[in-house]
Amino acid sequence: MAIQLFELVGTDESRPFSPYCWRTRMALAHKGLDATSIPWRFTEKEAIARHKSEKVPVLLDGEHTVSDSWAIANYLEDAYPDAPSLFGGEGGRAMARMLNVWGDTVVVGGMFPLIIADIHDHLRPEDQAYFRQSREARFGKTLEQIAADRDQRVEGFRKSLDPLRLTLKTQAYVGGAAPNYADYIMFGGFQWARAISPFQLLKSDDTIYAWRERMLDAFGGMARNSSGYAV
Amino acid sequence: MAIQLFELVGTDESRPFSPYCWRTRMALAHKGLDATSIPWRFTEKEAIARHKSEKVPVLLDGEHTVSDSWAIANYLEDAYPDAPSLFGGEGGRAMARMLNVWGDTVVVGGMFPLIIADIHDHLRPEDQAYFRQSREARFGKTLEQIAADRDQRVEGFRKSLDPLRLTLKTQAYVGGAAPNYADYIMFGGFQWARAISPFQLLKSDDTIYAWRERMLDAFGGMARNSSGYAV
Repeated sequence: MAIQLFELVGTDESRPFSPYCWRTRMALAHKGLDATSIPWRFTEKEAIARHKSEKVPVLLDGEHTVSDSWAIANYLEDAYPDAPSLFGGEGGRAMARMLNVWGDTVVVGGMFPLIIADIHDHLRPEDQAYFRQSREARFGKTLEQIAADRDQRVEGFRKSLDPLRLTLKTQAYVGGAAPNYADYIMFGGFQWARAISPFQLLKSDDTIYAWRERMLDAFGGMARNSSGYAV
Repeated sequence: MAIQLFELVGTDESRPFSPYCWRTRMALAHKGLDATSIPWRFTEKEAIARHKSEKVPVLLDGEHTVSDSWAIANYLEDAYPDAPSLFGGEGGRAMARMLNVWGDTVVVGGMFPLIIADIHDHLRPEDQAYFRQSREARFGKTLEQIAADRDQRVEGFRKSLDPLRLTLKTQAYVGGAAPNYADYIMFGGFQWARAISPFQLLKSDDTIYAWRERMLDAFGGMARNSSGYAV
């Protein structure tokens, strides 16, 4: 049976938008593995609770169930050792752990307030209510208040990406001459934003912008062909 | 002929303190290579100019001269492929590039204003004059002004280390179960501070503090046995 992947969507099933699901989707493509998408929405808790998870991505591979994008990447690397390596060796696997933390906090965490109101606009009414309530409680503000000053805040976000930017000035990908899981960690965030937000996170003359373009073209344009905004 | 390494010192030759020289010193130990230290001070520009460098570390290995800690790490990895790997594979080498940028900006750049006045206190008078003039021009303040609010600023520095801290909560070293060059990148900064500053950068209950203790013990306590402050 084919691999199955629960992927977060909103009103439009052709627009999966979780940064973590996109890490997994890119990792599957890197490994040359097909996976059937199971569209999943914020309030469909019971569909993944039976797989002992509260969040997506959740990967089903025969008798194996794996949740959490980092755990899935490690599972795929170990379960499919003959397919192209996601980490380029054990040193890369270890170092990707810190890059994963950086990607979670700086990339995903940094862009979240900038695009949060746009996420809401792409959800079904019942998911909108859940999203608004849970995220407004987390931030202590309304979604609209969180996003209100994003034109100013985006400058700080761009600056925070300097470690990624400076790296990409010396090599084509975080993973070296070709992309690997370190790139998917970072790209997942940008593809999340692209799916649901018309807000311009990057200037077009940014080294990171050019890298993102190459990532959009990877695997036959897989990410570019998914519904999104051309920003 | 043995490998030789130009290492930054001040008044005390037993107290090398450059964060970048310490990355190289740890990398040499990792590779099991002996190296003779050539003590070098800020104003001894001509001693390294003949090796076409303006900064240390500069490594002399037979007919090879290599400057810049990142270039030296790559040189050692390639020149001594049978010794333990610094990167754990090509994926690790590529990913270490981004960790190197992070270490330069967040670790070294973040602690520099906190310890800058203490560096000055460990230099010869002629080096003090050079250091004060060049660094005050860079910051646009006196050394004393830069360091004045360090008791408050250290909180922000500690917080900025979260990606390292969270990584070390899941694995013993940035490089995995054992240290590799990713750890030497980060540790170089802490050993720099330890050599010349009594200021407490880390709280003793910090995961990073425990990791630093293990790094001090590595290679028979090489870093701990170098002159420094026990903070």
